Amino acid sequence: MSTKQSHTFKKPFVTEGGATIPDPTIAYQTWGKLNAKRDNVILVCHALTGNTAADEWFEGIFGQNKGLDPNEHFIICPNVLGSCYGSSGPTSVNPETDKPYRADFPKVTIRDIVRLQQQLLDELDINAIELVIGGSMGGMQALEWCIMDERPQSAVLIGMGEKHRPWAIGISHTQRQAIYNDPSWNNGFYTEDNPPKKGLALARMIAMNSYRHPSDFDEKFGRRLQDGQSQYEVESYLNYQGEKLVERFDAVSYVRLTQAMDSHDIRRSRPRIEETLAGLTIPIAVIGIDSDMLYPAVECLELATKLPKARYEEISSPHGHDAFLIEFDQLNPIIKSLKSELSEQAV
Amino acid sequence: MSTKQSHTFKKPFVTEGGATIPDPTIAYQTWGKLNAKRDNVILVCHALTGNTAADEWFEGIFGQNKGLDPNEHFIICPNVLGSCYGSSGPTSVNPETDKPYRADFPKVTIRDIVRLQQQLLDELDINAIELVIGGSMGGMQALEWCIMDERPQSAVLIGMGEKHRPWAIGISHTQRQAIYNDPSWNNGFYTEDNPPKKGLALARMIAMNSYRHPSDFDEKFGRRLQDGQSQYEVESYLNYQGEKLVERFDAVSYVRLTQAMDSHDIRRSRPRIEETLAGLTIPIAVIGIDSDMLYPAVECLELATKLPKARYEEISSPHGHDAFLIEFDQLNPIIKSLKSELSEQAV
Repeated sequence: MSTKQSHTFKKPFVTEGGATIPDPTIAYQTWGKLNAKRDNVILVCHALTGNTAADEWFEGIFGQNKGLDPNEHFIICPNVLGSCYGSSGPTSVNPETDKPYRADFPKVTIRDIVRLQQQLLDELDINAIELVIGGSMGGMQALEWCIMDERPQSAVLIGMGEKHRPWAIGISHTQRQAIYNDPSWNNGFYTEDNPPKKGLALARMIAMNSYRHPSDFDEKFGRRLQDGQSQYEVESYLNYQGEKLVERFDAVSYVRLTQAMDSHDIRRSRPRIEETLAGLTIPIAVIGIDSDMLYPAVECLELATKLPKARYEEISSPHGHDAFLIEFDQLNPIIKSLKSELSEQAV
Repeated sequence: MSTKQSHTFKKPFVTEGGATIPDPTIAYQTWGKLNAKRDNVILVCHALTGNTAADEWFEGIFGQNKGLDPNEHFIICPNVLGSCYGSSGPTSVNPETDKPYRADFPKVTIRDIVRLQQQLLDELDINAIELVIGGSMGGMQALEWCIMDERPQSAVLIGMGEKHRPWAIGISHTQRQAIYNDPSWNNGFYTEDNPPKKGLALARMIAMNSYRHPSDFDEKFGRRLQDGQSQYEVESYLNYQGEKLVERFDAVSYVRLTQAMDSHDIRRSRPRIEETLAGLTIPIAVIGIDSDMLYPAVECLELATKLPKARYEEISSPHGHDAFLIEFDQLNPIIKSLKSELSEQAV
């Protein structure tokens, strides 16, 4: 049983860029019970097009005797600021105009996203976070949580590094450009009945190629043609992935959240970051994926070497970056071993 | 001194797909002199957006004492069928309508491209090709030359494999989709003054990310912002690359030639290919690039193992797939060593 809810703060939220969101709302979902000390918490951070339903997209590590066990823990998964799944974002109503924000919704950073989550955990009187976990954009948040907050006691960071590299920014850029090129985009102020579907679909297709690995596509599609001679199966697959996303995601949210990912750099505006990192002595598992084309495993390894008590683990998978949502049999033991380490420390 | 020219055949050209091009033209450029035996020939095959000016884009391996030396050889570089640099293609005038073909220009395959080149070399009474060389789409042609024609005596194939893999087809697909999404595309029948510039520019940007390597972009751009806070240098670079291509290339040609690349598979419709490969005993250098994201080096290695007298060589470069147009110091010795092998055979 999970509880879906949301909290709206009365205090305005000011972004790193200086924009104000007057009544910031954060949607979240929880599972399990908070203990008396209010410290048996697992915080799950979702990726770019994710939502609060961690029990669905992290299914294989979620449940009894799994890495994330709601019988033992109070598990919470907030929707990120700027998304379209309940938290304040471009599809929320702008109180100044009584219409959806659309492109008037400001740029946010990974740190802005984390800051609003911090306010939620303050509101819930949470004293400690036994584990913060995330992959891809979720891992970026989890890493910033470790830097920005003293509550995390351990962390699992999957498929990302200390910063978004220019190659990944370049791939993000082409995705945004695909959206901007759609005539329905209208500078981000499209109407409800005419969203930039083709542009968003293409953005998703570009992303899908980066999330997967050549060998994965060899296995799945080979060079087979879909219907007679007109197109390859892989083309039809990409079209389908694009169409599916358009039904469930908003184009401005996609732009704002890829921009948030581009903002990711733990060194940005932090002259004393080395001290912060040196003081970060909680156990952390940084997990690379051997077939990740978008965030090559070496980035995860490099991050691990900079964190005093981090270990580097590598998932072996043909599925590329998306392996963090697939290779649950390899993720579970890593999470469990981290939990054992924590309880040994506690003894 | 080079000679730019073109030849128009009176005999119609029928594509693999069964379409007819009534008066096929092939543009080409030559350097050096054909010997009496008409066999001192080097055939250079260009890549996707390339042209006949091999002395420019292969500059570092071209010239006295280089791999391609016009003092010794008659070097010929034809423009591919379907391109927009002089050979018959979507911008050529369709004799049926007296207007440019545009999307009425048929799909062509790598084998169609090679077949028209064969006709040109027949026309020029060329008896043997000492070396056929190409990278990327040029390598695909060079490989088909070895299979389809008995004239090549040696070959250099760079940055490609025996077939276009579905992952590469997926990346091609997003590039074509970018063009199709441009409202000026008009099903390929755009007007001279309103070509689908934004779509073609985006296609190029998507391609550029695949041609380069994360470390290359780290080195070139890092996370630096271009002008104040508005965009990253890498974004500005990609925009510039897109704008540059639009000034020199045609959108339907781009679509047709990426489709030709997708057609590349030496096994397609060839039940007896194993025998053909076994009989291919000319010396061939298959060259992989260690940082190639689009056609990983392992594809080149796999191709080499299937060719009886091929050797595998690897270029070490931070520049990704584009290294075949950059790492001339590594290419020259490989070409020269292949030429020595040939002359030893001759003795």
